[in-house]
Amino acid sequence: MAKAITPRETNYSEWYLDIVKKANLASNSAVRGCMVIKPYGFGIWELMQRQLDDMFKETGHVNAYFPLFIPKSFLSKEAAHVEGFAKECAVVTHYRLKNAEDGSGVIVDPEAKLEEELIVRPTSETIIWSTYRDWITSYRDLPLLINQWANVVRWELRTRLFLRTAEFLWQEGHTAHATAEEALEEALKMQGVYADFAEQYMAMPVLRGVKTANERFAGALDTYTIEALMQDGKALQAGTSHNLGQNFAKAFDVKFSNAENQEEYVWASSWGVSTRLVGGLIMTHSDDEGLVLPPKLAPIQVVIVPIPKPNETLTAKAKEIMAELKARGIRVSYDDDDKQRPGFKFAENELKGIPVRLGLGNRDLENGTIEVARRDEKTKESKPLEGIVDYVTRLLDEIQQNLFDRALRFREEHTTYVDTFEEFQEVIDRDIPGFIYAHWDGTTETELKIKELTKATIRCIPQDQPEEAGQCVLTGKPSRGRVVFAKAY
Amino acid sequence: MAKAITPRETNYSEWYLDIVKKANLASNSAVRGCMVIKPYGFGIWELMQRQLDDMFKETGHVNAYFPLFIPKSFLSKEAAHVEGFAKECAVVTHYRLKNAEDGSGVIVDPEAKLEEELIVRPTSETIIWSTYRDWITSYRDLPLLINQWANVVRWELRTRLFLRTAEFLWQEGHTAHATAEEALEEALKMQGVYADFAEQYMAMPVLRGVKTANERFAGALDTYTIEALMQDGKALQAGTSHNLGQNFAKAFDVKFSNAENQEEYVWASSWGVSTRLVGGLIMTHSDDEGLVLPPKLAPIQVVIVPIPKPNETLTAKAKEIMAELKARGIRVSYDDDDKQRPGFKFAENELKGIPVRLGLGNRDLENGTIEVARRDEKTKESKPLEGIVDYVTRLLDEIQQNLFDRALRFREEHTTYVDTFEEFQEVIDRDIPGFIYAHWDGTTETELKIKELTKATIRCIPQDQPEEAGQCVLTGKPSRGRVVFAKAY
Repeated sequence: MAKAITPRETNYSEWYLDIVKKANLASNSAVRGCMVIKPYGFGIWELMQRQLDDMFKETGHVNAYFPLFIPKSFLSKEAAHVEGFAKECAVVTHYRLKNAEDGSGVIVDPEAKLEEELIVRPTSETIIWSTYRDWITSYRDLPLLINQWANVVRWELRTRLFLRTAEFLWQEGHTAHATAEEALEEALKMQGVYADFAEQYMAMPVLRGVKTANERFAGALDTYTIEALMQDGKALQAGTSHNLGQNFAKAFDVKFSNAENQEEYVWASSWGVSTRLVGGLIMTHSDDEGLVLPPKLAPIQVVIVPIPKPNETLTAKAKEIMAELKARGIRVSYDDDDKQRPGFKFAENELKGIPVRLGLGNRDLENGTIEVARRDEKTKESKPLEGIVDYVTRLLDEIQQNLFDRALRFREEHTTYVDTFEEFQEVIDRDIPGFIYAHWDGTTETELKIKELTKATIRCIPQDQPEEAGQCVLTGKPSRGRVVFAKAY
Repeated sequence: MAKAITPRETNYSEWYLDIVKKANLASNSAVRGCMVIKPYGFGIWELMQRQLDDMFKETGHVNAYFPLFIPKSFLSKEAAHVEGFAKECAVVTHYRLKNAEDGSGVIVDPEAKLEEELIVRPTSETIIWSTYRDWITSYRDLPLLINQWANVVRWELRTRLFLRTAEFLWQEGHTAHATAEEALEEALKMQGVYADFAEQYMAMPVLRGVKTANERFAGALDTYTIEALMQDGKALQAGTSHNLGQNFAKAFDVKFSNAENQEEYVWASSWGVSTRLVGGLIMTHSDDEGLVLPPKLAPIQVVIVPIPKPNETLTAKAKEIMAELKARGIRVSYDDDDKQRPGFKFAENELKGIPVRLGLGNRDLENGTIEVARRDEKTKESKPLEGIVDYVTRLLDEIQQNLFDRALRFREEHTTYVDTFEEFQEVIDRDIPGFIYAHWDGTTETELKIKELTKATIRCIPQDQPEEAGQCVLTGKPSRGRVVFAKAY
């Protein structure tokens, strides 16, 4: 095996990249900021996609597909939107290459210049709302509940595999409604779907909250977020949904006639999660031995290792167990490579984060036992072969729950309520700062000042926070409730 | 309902576009040549994707994801490849917009010019083989059997929804092998997977053959194709797989050490099908009333219509039938709109190509019967309610088979063997020319001459064609077997 993973304590950022690379999840590409998602990493993303897609369909959404390119003039139609995206976008200006006359190779053909430049979509509100204009005339056409799985490009200068890349994969929901209430309800509903997905499938506890004006999506009235806490005490924005009000309908002149036959602008929401979630999954559960995956999102949930090597008897028994596990929908594989020793295989399987390893030796078989190793707690026990399939089925659920509980405990241990700026600074300077609940006076000015002094941003105004009179931790001005600060990815 | 569909006889091309638009499959977008795939059209594509993905995985492939952008210099590394794609590609030259100083809006920031231009992938051989260089060192790393679902862009001048669009969705398989034989075997295997998919799922019979040098993929040793016949007697290339030999391995210097520890260039295949298949599906089965879908790819397989309007009794019975159909995995919907009459609904359901319609009236219920209408044959029968779920289940299989048989019969009726150029011209000038089997002397010169004279191209050299000595239909030079000519999309 290649050199070991850098321990989290030594260098958290290197630890993360080591896991991404050594577990074969993704790599950098020849194109600046764009990643290659390798088969094992893509397998995790596919499980996420399949589950989210099911959840979107259960809540009444359908999929569609809109163009990759956005005419430059479209981006400009919503003022805040262009402000948010113009500084980091890929611009297509030509549509042909040709051979250089001096034989030096292929060059852009200057005669094939586009009349209007095209932007590679950074998000699709503008192209979609220009389309909705043709689709919507009456309240009978509403609501439109549409999702798209797509690639998008934002020309980020500082990239990190999965967490921030120039191109990434995501889904973007774009819904159209007849009333302001419905659009708001939809935005909240999808935030809820994201939170359920994060907690029940990724085993990653999240806070639900509203973004401040300063952190809001470019063009939204309000942005709802789910925020998770990583093991280095930094927050990860894991998914957002936006109440867009009538902003995009006005920019693209999308009106409908309501039940009273009056013309009105349409109300909108949009919402998205991306391959960034794979980064969040890695950072929530993994350890210094490698990846740790919650069973529901593990491409391989159970691996059977013959000890010390495969033979006819062991392979027959392993295949029997595999068939029974597969019949229950469990993803299982048999590590029958006869060139590697068990110790090597154990380490490889740990690196890949396979939740359960079954070690099957000849002596075990004689005794009617099998060795069961849990990746999450790194424990190992001998169990009766009889009933092993039932046991493993229950164990996968137990591991899923344990990972969530562990991550929740970690978050609780790294959540601090502070009332003075001294305390704030003390907490934010810790090795693992975590979430800080503090009073804030509600101004962008104070928010930015705190960021400047501490690098902490307001992750959200929690939706379940009780009202509580207090004084802003920086300015002492009155506040009606605490907001959540953290350093963030 | 909007104005009727143009009949095929009147104008086949308008008929096709009418169906695409009226059945809500796709529409043109604000971006030249790029389409919007609407939810109903995307639903068909999703069913295709799911099935193909399962077939790829059953044959040992895994999915991954590679960058959207290709550095210009990469495209140039394989000489034939750049020749094939340079003339129609979208080129990214800048990475930022800025506000014009004169306040006229947003312009491309001239200071944000890329050092090397990026091409939006027209296909991914070059970016993928530049990556495989890092992944392959030994024969133990082979074979690599990887597929990618992605969007690609080819700047076509004349576009038509689904059949030819500037951006389209597809899958592209890119495999790496230790021997020439394995690469060839893989290319043939995937052509077989495509043929099985076309025939068993799309109910679209296909010819399997090899492309001539002139029609070969840019950079391949050989291209294997499946060719279908549309109702206007024109051929549609429905999927291709390529034996790439060592061309891309040499261009990107990808070597491996074989079992004898000698360095060798890696052998490759690539293969792809695209949203073009949706166009082929439409043109194979549909009629002047609208879309006709094979049950296996119909987003809605059965629709239940209450006659004349929904009431409690009818709805209760409909829900009972729906539950039983759903339990068998059949996609069923209930058309309970109480504002529209049955006649309107029937026409709408026909337009959408729903294979089976169940009409349920109060009198039927009393008599213990239900009306069963088949979309494919436009027949209607009263059937006993008892056992209706079994009947419908069998009927869906029967319709699937009937559509295939019908299309095969059509192809047989429009396949002609000709031995003189006079006959050739007579057949190709028919309203529905179809496939022409004729002898050819094997030269590109003759192939192009025939194209110039008749607009017919060689669709393929059939793989199952017996050797047969003959004389070229144009030049009279010797030939060892017939090839298939047709006008084509």
